[in-house]
Amino acid sequence: MASSEKPTIPENSSAAVSKKGAKKAEAKAKKEAEKARKAAEREATAASEINISNEDTAKQNYGPISNSTKTASKLIHLRDLTEDYVGSTFKLRAWIQNARMQGAKMAFLELREEGSWTVQGVVAANNEGTVSKQMVKWIGGLKLESFVQVEAEVKKPLEPVKSCKVSEIELHLTKLYLVAPAPEMLGLGLAVANRAVGRLDEEETTETNLEGMSLNDAIPLASLATHLNNPAMHKRAPVSQAIADIRIAVEDLFCEYLRARRFKRFHPPSLIGAASEGGANVFRLPYFEKEAYLAQSPQFYKQFEIAGGRKRVFCVSPVFRAENSNTPRHLTEFTGLDLEMEIEEHYHEILEILEGVFLHIFKELSTRYREEIELVRSIYPSEELLLPEPGKEVRLTFAEGQALLRAEGPEEFRNVTDDEDMSTSQEKALGALVRKKYKTDFYVLDKFPTAARPFYAMPDPENPAVTNAYDFMIRGQEILSGGQRIHLPGELEASIRSKGLDPNQPGIKEYVDIFKSVGVPPHGGGGIGLDRVVAWYLNLPSVHLTCDYPRTPKRLNP
Amino acid sequence: MASSEKPTIPENSSAAVSKKGAKKAEAKAKKEAEKARKAAEREATAASEINISNEDTAKQNYGPISNSTKTASKLIHLRDLTEDYVGSTFKLRAWIQNARMQGAKMAFLELREEGSWTVQGVVAANNEGTVSKQMVKWIGGLKLESFVQVEAEVKKPLEPVKSCKVSEIELHLTKLYLVAPAPEMLGLGLAVANRAVGRLDEEETTETNLEGMSLNDAIPLASLATHLNNPAMHKRAPVSQAIADIRIAVEDLFCEYLRARRFKRFHPPSLIGAASEGGANVFRLPYFEKEAYLAQSPQFYKQFEIAGGRKRVFCVSPVFRAENSNTPRHLTEFTGLDLEMEIEEHYHEILEILEGVFLHIFKELSTRYREEIELVRSIYPSEELLLPEPGKEVRLTFAEGQALLRAEGPEEFRNVTDDEDMSTSQEKALGALVRKKYKTDFYVLDKFPTAARPFYAMPDPENPAVTNAYDFMIRGQEILSGGQRIHLPGELEASIRSKGLDPNQPGIKEYVDIFKSVGVPPHGGGGIGLDRVVAWYLNLPSVHLTCDYPRTPKRLNP
Repeated sequence: MASSEKPTIPENSSAAVSKKGAKKAEAKAKKEAEKARKAAEREATAASEINISNEDTAKQNYGPISNSTKTASKLIHLRDLTEDYVGSTFKLRAWIQNARMQGAKMAFLELREEGSWTVQGVVAANNEGTVSKQMVKWIGGLKLESFVQVEAEVKKPLEPVKSCKVSEIELHLTKLYLVAPAPEMLGLGLAVANRAVGRLDEEETTETNLEGMSLNDAIPLASLATHLNNPAMHKRAPVSQAIADIRIAVEDLFCEYLRARRFKRFHPPSLIGAASEGGANVFRLPYFEKEAYLAQSPQFYKQFEIAGGRKRVFCVSPVFRAENSNTPRHLTEFTGLDLEMEIEEHYHEILEILEGVFLHIFKELSTRYREEIELVRSIYPSEELLLPEPGKEVRLTFAEGQALLRAEGPEEFRNVTDDEDMSTSQEKALGALVRKKYKTDFYVLDKFPTAARPFYAMPDPENPAVTNAYDFMIRGQEILSGGQRIHLPGELEASIRSKGLDPNQPGIKEYVDIFKSVGVPPHGGGGIGLDRVVAWYLNLPSVHLTCDYPRTPKRLNP
Repeated sequence: MASSEKPTIPENSSAAVSKKGAKKAEAKAKKEAEKARKAAEREATAASEINISNEDTAKQNYGPISNSTKTASKLIHLRDLTEDYVGSTFKLRAWIQNARMQGAKMAFLELREEGSWTVQGVVAANNEGTVSKQMVKWIGGLKLESFVQVEAEVKKPLEPVKSCKVSEIELHLTKLYLVAPAPEMLGLGLAVANRAVGRLDEEETTETNLEGMSLNDAIPLASLATHLNNPAMHKRAPVSQAIADIRIAVEDLFCEYLRARRFKRFHPPSLIGAASEGGANVFRLPYFEKEAYLAQSPQFYKQFEIAGGRKRVFCVSPVFRAENSNTPRHLTEFTGLDLEMEIEEHYHEILEILEGVFLHIFKELSTRYREEIELVRSIYPSEELLLPEPGKEVRLTFAEGQALLRAEGPEEFRNVTDDEDMSTSQEKALGALVRKKYKTDFYVLDKFPTAARPFYAMPDPENPAVTNAYDFMIRGQEILSGGQRIHLPGELEASIRSKGLDPNQPGIKEYVDIFKSVGVPPHGGGGIGLDRVVAWYLNLPSVHLTCDYPRTPKRLNP
């Protein structure tokens, strides 16, 4: 028994679905209902007589329970459910993703567990009275996203249940207990939560684009704000779970690659005693009798680790920017993946490590996380990231990049100069040119002009107008900034002064003092914005879709 | 050639060494110097004639360099240096841990790399003039903790060099370049940095305890403040490197164990919109037009992840406490290791995971990190942690713990009651009793009284005076606090009110709303203070010795 077509995903959000879209959906749902009804009739005919008395003979087989209720059956997870289990009885704890009555004696459920694992549940009143009409009615009326415990026999459906990930199996329920009820009305339904976001600003909206639409398109697009204000439902959407899983993978692959190369983890502080890089865009707070600041990067602390005798370090830490930027690229708190290492002969040793870490991440993602990537692509389309052949990584100098823009870029960039930083639109235009010329979406822009880098950037010994500092780009957007640092205190003080800063000002003095206190080997590194890597890799419209709890000038909740 | 005895570790910190201790040290150093001199004479006799002209024939073989100088020789790391390399010439980059002249034509160095790897370097003026007297003199006068690049022939010493970790090898230097010079005087010498800390308060002191002392004991103890105010040297001490390595291992083992059990990482925010747990001890800061707070724990966010459809989550994140506590157990910012999971039948499923994670950590540490542990023990003595046999983990209820204290504990605890939280001294006394009775330093205290737990703690269904909440202890000190949480919004609101709080107050309302917005399965977890685990495991006197950059009410630097 199975309604083998994709059923309407019920949508009880307050979002309005257009009449035209709704009608189409209705028609489709009717057709499916008819199909399922026929299947149900076949089943009903098989059972000789149905208990139709008003006495509820199944009372003990359903209703609310506390979590400590033990049952004899073994618990199973959907990901482990194969045809080998057909005929056995199991316990499952899951969310009700969909529930509908089929006449008075039968109900169909979609049960969801662990992100996107779904299975069809069937409950039918029986002659023995262990499943009563009252029980079926109660189950059919359960609120969506309630958490339930079921006991069920594993059966093979007549046809695969296309609407469920576990399609070769269905569960015939003998018991269903309500562990945690959902409310009458969800703030955001699962179907909407599992679509692309609409508007990216802080407005709570849902939009429906009507013409020439498939059923799926008729599900409205909720704005990013609506998603983030309904975090439990936003996170339950399979697309959100897949993005979160890919984000974890990027972090783990970063750590895995570096650990294998003798990098050691440390934890930089978030609370610091002085604003380090000039004092702009820093959060300040009262700290007992003093003032404290939130770290804008782990930069100084990575270098302290090198001064403290570590050859290679990395950290994963929150980074804070008090910048009033309300764009899809900005967060006021983000997860930084940072590394720093001794240089043995040349700072390009760092570039090799960094190219290695990104190629490791991108290659492993594209194999180990193929399923999650495809799921995300079904909602947010993207092309496969073009990567260079091993050993053929593309490194352009900043000046070469600007020359390419002048020569082959859009009109507006015909006069860009080599001593000014690039704008976001320049970066994107250059990304397109590099893709065309070198067949890669991933490349390095090296030797940034001194004017565009902080005081600790090591000047190129052969051309002090530029630095041994670089950015890494994917799809025309920056994902890493790094470089060699000045390691001698005299040179550092001179560079600080050349930027109009005072080497004795709080925050800078403590930094310079470390280099005066011991001999510090040449070193350098880079800082990666985790959410940018994930968002641009997946071609998402905003880093607010990858961060677990995005913080912006307007958002501190949930 | 080798001075085969342990040499004086030079100490050029400003710390005063007592006259008596210093005299002893001097006498011992003289004896060693004499020994080494004789060895050097034998060597000198072997060389037919030494270049004694004033012209420096070795100019190109020493002096300051920038890091981009390439040399032909292959770079080697001390950990890879074995007797197989005898006769070969290599390049090494290292710190000068010790340097002393031996007459006018020879100098001995101790070179250190990667934490505690040291090797003896020998440089002697030769007849060919490739090593000149001037070069030897310059090398012998290099400041300690300078970073140098040497080129050297690997030789086998006459006797093992006991003072160095690489004892079966010595390096005969042909070139030595100064990459980063150290200052005239170090704020904290390596020998002092590698001893136990003295005073734990914020005073900068060094103490020497004189009578009946070995040479090693004559090295003074610097206060914790002196250590922390000289971070590069404090961190370079092998004991600090070993503690940091063990700390990394605890974090990695925690993550490794949980990942293997399908726990998924997430990142809770540090910036939050409201003080969550009543508002005490929370840091506040201006946030654009609003006010923000620093998270006191990832508690609510772990639960939001469960509400958001994750079955099992963990996080490693900074946690902030604005508590004016100046004790060796407190930090204002610390690294929390947290986990949260769905409960299937009973909250003891969480206890099993948590016991498992700790036993995994302790067992793997004691094998994989044996060398580091022994190094730490040579400075901070400790006994091996007594662990229960597998399957015989010790779980006491809070009431059982108090009963044991009343029956067998010190006089002062004869009247402790079952409905008040335990003090630190009670915990320590109970730890001693449990160790005696159950032969374990690791145990669980379950069923804490309701009065001692926050509003979200799930009451025991059979006895509402206690909760399904627990602490984990090692050596009589708490390392984890956790429990089952209330997952139904009605029960949660009642509990909030019973604690005298308002379910509609900012910070609490947003929390309750999540449970109202969907059905949330039963769940629970725990939070671990990483530094406490490391400090109490190693029996260190303070968590400020394990944290990479400790923050206290009085300390925000470095």
